[in-house]
Parts: sequence; C-alpha cells; structure tokens
Amino acid sequence: MPAAISLVTLLTDFGSGDYFVASLKGVILNINPQAHLVDVSHHVRPHDVFHAAYLLKSCYRYFPDGTVHVAVVDPGVGSSRRPLLVSTSRYFFVGPDNGLFTYIFDEETDVEVRHIENRHYRLDSEGATFDGRDLFAPSAGWLTKGQPLGSFGRLVQNPKRLSIDQPKWHNHVMTGEIVYVDHFGNLISNFTRLQLTEVGSITKRSQPYIRIAGLTIEGLVESYSDGAPHSPSALINSDGQLEVFVKEGHAASTLGVMQGAQIEIA
Amino acid sequence: MPAAISLVTLLTDFGSGDYFVASLKGVILNINPQAHLVDVSHHVRPHDVFHAAYLLKSCYRYFPDGTVHVAVVDPGVGSSRRPLLVSTSRYFFVGPDNGLFTYIFDEETDVEVRHIENRHYRLDSEGATFDGRDLFAPSAGWLTKGQPLGSFGRLVQNPKRLSIDQPKWHNHVMTGEIVYVDHFGNLISNFTRLQLTEVGSITKRSQPYIRIAGLTIEGLVESYSDGAPHSPSALINSDGQLEVFVKEGHAASTLGVMQGAQIEIA
Amino acid sequence: MPAAISLVTLLTDFGSGDYFVASLKGVILNINPQAHLVDVSHHVRPHDVFHAAYLLKSCYRYFPDGTVHVAVVDPGVGSSRRPLLVSTSRYFFVGPDNGLFTYIFDEETDVEVRHIENRHYRLDSEGATFDGRDLFAPSAGWLTKGQPLGSFGRLVQNPKRLSIDQPKWHNHVMTGEIVYVDHFGNLISNFTRLQLTEVGSITKRSQPYIRIAGLTIEGLVESYSDGAPHSPSALINSDGQLEVFVKEGHAASTLGVMQGAQIEIA
Repeated sequence: MPAAISLVTLLTDFGSGDYFVASLKGVILNINPQAHLVDVSHHVRPHDVFHAAYLLKSCYRYFPDGTVHVAVVDPGVGSSRRPLLVSTSRYFFVGPDNGLFTYIFDEETDVEVRHIENRHYRLDSEGATFDGRDLFAPSAGWLTKGQPLGSFGRLVQNPKRLSIDQPKWHNHVMTGEIVYVDHFGNLISNFTRLQLTEVGSITKRSQPYIRIAGLTIEGLVESYSDGAPHSPSALINSDGQLEVFVKEGHAASTLGVMQGAQIEIA
Repeated sequence: MPAAISLVTLLTDFGSGDYFVASLKGVILNINPQAHLVDVSHHVRPHDVFHAAYLLKSCYRYFPDGTVHVAVVDPGVGSSRRPLLVSTSRYFFVGPDNGLFTYIFDEETDVEVRHIENRHYRLDSEGATFDGRDLFAPSAGWLTKGQPLGSFGRLVQNPKRLSIDQPKWHNHVMTGEIVYVDHFGNLISNFTRLQLTEVGSITKRSQPYIRIAGLTIEGLVESYSDGAPHSPSALINSDGQLEVFVKEGHAASTLGVMQGAQIEIA
Repeated sequence: MPAAISLVTLLTDFGSGDYFVASLKGVILNINPQAHLVDVSHHVRPHDVFHAAYLLKSCYRYFPDGTVHVAVVDPGVGSSRRPLLVSTSRYFFVGPDNGLFTYIFDEETDVEVRHIENRHYRLDSEGATFDGRDLFAPSAGWLTKGQPLGSFGRLVQNPKRLSIDQPKWHNHVMTGEIVYVDHFGNLISNFTRLQLTEVGSITKRSQPYIRIAGLTIEGLVESYSDGAPHSPSALINSDGQLEVFVKEGHAASTLGVMQGAQIEIA
C-alpha cells in the first residue's frame, strides 16, 4: 500500500447544476488546502451504482499510486449501509458499501476494506442526507493528510458486490451484452479478444460474425475511420473490448440499442 | 479578515459548452500561476441572480478561510451596475452589485463592500459584454496576489439585496415555498426545524402535516431510505431544511412541482 | 519559445458523462503529479473540428506563456492522420492534424509543427480508438516535464488547415455569417469593427443597418442592458465581433437562427 498522496478524484451522481460537488471540494480543501481535486464524472445516472462502478473501473488505474478515489452514488444514504474505506496495493477508495467497488475487489491486489466509524471524520449536520459532504469528503481529506487506516474503523470481511454478467455459450453462439453506451453512441460490449479467439477456434473463421439488433456485422476493422459509412462496424477498442460503432455517427440511435441489449458472436 | 489565499471558486451562468469559463481561468492563472481554481457551478439558469445567490450561500462556508469566491451572473454587464469586492471575517467575494451576495450580507460578519474602480484591475477589450473575463477574473487574481482591499476602490454603503420570502402564518397554517429543486428532483423548502417546532407548539402534534400539490404528507422520516415507495415523503435535510422527496424517484416530476410552489405545514 | 510550464488545458468532444476525460487527466498526472489541469470544454459537438478550433482560438491567449493546450476532436483517430505538437512564441498545442490549429497558425508567431512519432510517448493499448489517453495525454505530460521538442518527432511543413470564410461584398452590401451561437443564444458573426468602418465609409452612415433572418436592426448599442426589450439588438462584443442578441432573452430561438446563418451589413 502506498502512502496517500494529495490527489483526490470525485465520482458522483450529483450533476453539475447544484452546490453538492462544490461542498465536497470545500470540505476536502478545508482539511487539506494542498489537495488536488480531479472530477471523474458527476453525471452518473441518479442512483445507478452499476454505472458508477463501470466508470470507476475504466479510469482509476491511470492515476498515480496513492490517489484517493471518492465515489458517491448512494441511494442508501442515512440508512445502515456502511461507509467504506478500501485500500489496495496502489490506491485508496472511499464510498458507500453498495457494490460500487466490485471491480476494484476483482482487479486490485492487497485489498483491505474498513468500515468508517470514527466520528472525528464526520461533520456535524442536522440531517442524514448528505454523507458525501459530511462523511466521505472529510474521510478523503484526512487520508491525504496521512491519518492511519486503522484510525478510520474496523476491517470488514464481506463488502457488497454487484453481480456482473459474463458472456455465455448458447447453441454454438456466444451471447454477451452491451455494458456501456458512450457519449458518441458507441456500443461497448462485454466481449474481449479472449472470447473472440475462443469463438474463432470453434468456428474456424478468422473473423467473427457479430449480431446485434437484428443485423449482422462481418468481421472487425482496426479503427473508426475504417468503418463503413452509415452502417454499423465493429472493432476492439483501446480498453480491449468489442465495440460496435457507426463511422462519424451514433450507433445507439441508428440501431435503437441501449445498455443491456444482447449481442452475439459466432 | 483573513489574508486571501490562492483558492478561487467560480460560479456563473456561462454553461460548459463555450470558451467563457476557460477565459476567466486563463486570466486568473496569468496573474497568479499558483491559483487553485474550483468550479462551484456554471449551470445557473441564465440571468437568474436568485438561483446563483442560493447556490453560493449553500456551499461557500465549507471552503477554507481566505478563499476568493467569484460569482458572475450579470445581466446588467456594461451598464452602470457596480462591480463589487466584498470582504468578510472569513472570505472574499467578487461579482456584480445585483443582489448575488444577499445571503452573504445576512450570514457573514465584518462585511465590507467596495466598488471595484481601479482601472489597473481591468483588461482592455473592445466591448462591454464580458466583465467576467475583463474585470472580475483579474480582480480575483490580484486579490490572491495580496493586493490591498483599499486599492480596488471605495467603500459602498448600500449594495443591492434580493428580497427573500420567509414562511408566514395564515389561518393556523404556516405557508412557505419551494426555494430549490435539485438534480434528483428533491423539493427543498424554506422551512427549517425552527418553524416545525413553532407549528408543533401550536398544533400540539409531535409530527407535522405537510401539504404540497394537493397532497398531504404525514410526519417526517429520518433518511431517504425510510421514504415510502412511489409516494412523496419529507425529512429535514443535511442543510437543516424541510425537503420533500420520492424514494429513488424524482419528486418534482411526480408531483408536477417547480421552484416557487407553495408548501404548508400544520 | 517559452519553457513548458505545468499548466495543461484540455479541449475535447468527450462530454462529461464518460470516463474519457478522467483517463486523460490520470495519465498526465501519473507522468507529472505537479501538472495543473484546466478544462476548456468537453462539449464540442462530436467530431466538429471547426467548433473546437473556434473555442480554442477564443481563449488560448489568456493563459500564461508556456501553457500546453491539448485539443482532441479526432474523428480520424487510428487512421494515418498525424498526431501533432505545435510550438509558438508563447504556447504549445497537442492534437491531431485535422485543422484544429488553423487559427493558431494564423495568429501566433514562430510556429513550428512536429509529427509526434516517438513511441516512448505512447501508452500501449490493444486498440486504436483512444489516442487522447494513449498518445496526446502522455505527450502533454512529458512536455510539462521538459522533454525537448526534437524528441517528439520531425518537423512537418504542411499541417492541415480549415477554410475559414471571410465576409464578402455583394451589391453594395457586405455579407457575413453567424460563426458561433453561445449558451445565451447570442449570435456571433464574423464581422469586426474593421468591416463596419469599411461599410460606413461607403454608405456615409455613422451607424450600420444589420439584416438577419428577414429583420433589420438599425445601429449598434454599447451593452446588453441597452438592448431593446424582446426584439434583437446588436453590439460589438468584448472579442471585437459584431453580435446580435435579445436583451435577457435568447436570440437564436427568437430569430430561429443557427450557426452558419447569413448576416448582412449596409
């Protein structure tokens, strides 16, 4: 585990129109005026823990060792759900125990999870609706000031996990799903090159057939600019995932496809 | 009054799609490359000074002493409305004299208000449409560099104030209004626990009846997760205000209620 | 050419809802934890290189000398379009060779353009869809660490330029266009005071007639607050451009006018 550095990232479903994000930042800077704050996104769909978990796993590893990642998508705020501090061989994570850190538990090493219990790390407020400001932000601030992990609270053995669907074989076809639709309307699936190779070793074809929304895409291209005009193409994107796109277009609108849609390779 | 630190917050109605916010940041950093800039929000409704004043009062106090808060919602830019520098026992505020700082005047101590007159703190530009970049940003930048308050301009005695409605008694019922609708659709009223106690001392009930949009909510809950499914509930939020919400839903849409709507307690 | 400072601005069409912008920031901070990151905008219309070029030219000059401006609107990512490093007498610019830097080439001095070829400045990834994270961000990070320009790649003589339309005379009327519509619905034209003076010297009128969307605006006002209520007015804005607005309203909606619309002065 590295020492915490003064870099704090923030991921929430607070939007950008309210005073919520600024309140968190004020609290952190009040504890550590040297803190360096980076927004991951505040446009997680309200209360959508899976969405937040996916965003976090897609970018956390690019930050320097010792970064404190704060993630607050917290429909259970004020209930008995536990506030967590997670440490790994490279990072710290602060947020509610609702599955937000599922991918972190799977991908990081030396994972320790603590229940933040120390009242010293909580701001007094009248209500119980804003743990982002009153608990998670001060915890992150104090972490960057070098407070020892043990001072936050006891180890937890069974943090909550989301169930993440993996692609499945079904009648000689591998079935997956669209796990993310990005700003450009690109459709990101839960297939990686691993599954493509597996399918290829069975079909004996060098290039897969990809079926989505009643259409079949034949084979992969290398880059967006190699895509066919107006009709969907597919490639392995820079995160290693199979992605369906329309060249300089918006695949989600063109195909009428949303997150959760089925996609098949054969 | 503390010394100004190099932390500057920015609150505007500029949106996030133009070059306006970046221009302000460039100007401040050109004067003080050590300045630390934090966005409060740039999504104030265009020209809505009340909205900006409300956002500012909701978060300014969480920042460290000496923070310079810049607020630019300025439909009167280029007219004779005065540019202001406000100092208090804890903070500095920079923005137009249009009521933006009403809550600051009410809540802060040792308030001094100055008219920014010094031409040295204005960038030359051809037009009179962008005081955010040409006047307020440089003023904030120079403040963080330690320029004395007196160098900005003369004291002002009568800065503009917004008229803020308070709840009122009317036929044994206390009538307030929804003063803010947040990103989640939660309806924040101008009632605090003070009014609830006052009403309770008259009605002799331990829990209030809350009427909004033709519905009656009986009593308060403690947290969002205690809310009834699908129908509105109420609680005292972490800012101490009575708030109506729908659990994991959007109260504003469900009830068809907007800012300014009437709410009653009895 | 100044030494690169650790200030990096970011301009993309990535939106604010995905993990893309955060990935860039993580990569830069991993190379240089002291880097200071400022968002210009991430709301460029997807793939709209002209829009990005216009935003960049409107604010880059306000930043301190040595700032590294990163601009990634890159429909050709993964194709043979070249990644560029541009240095000028004041700044550095990093982004694809697709015309993004047209205004920079026109307005800056001592312009040198290099093709970023050094594999050391590229992160390994499986695909070719995210040069923002895998190439432009590390290049910016290493620039702020003082890597010499020559280490990035060879000089390029013919970077791509957008064709920018200038106002034209046509039957004693000067015809221009709306080049930008801002968040407030203000309509910014490609006329400057220069063209107004030229037209005035021919018409012998002290104030121009301005025609847009079938309406005629007579003469200019000085500031937004001088505008007529409900109907469009015009002024020279603080960037020196002729702008049509509706006082405390939204000219684009009121007039039904979009970017590219024709505007005439006589």
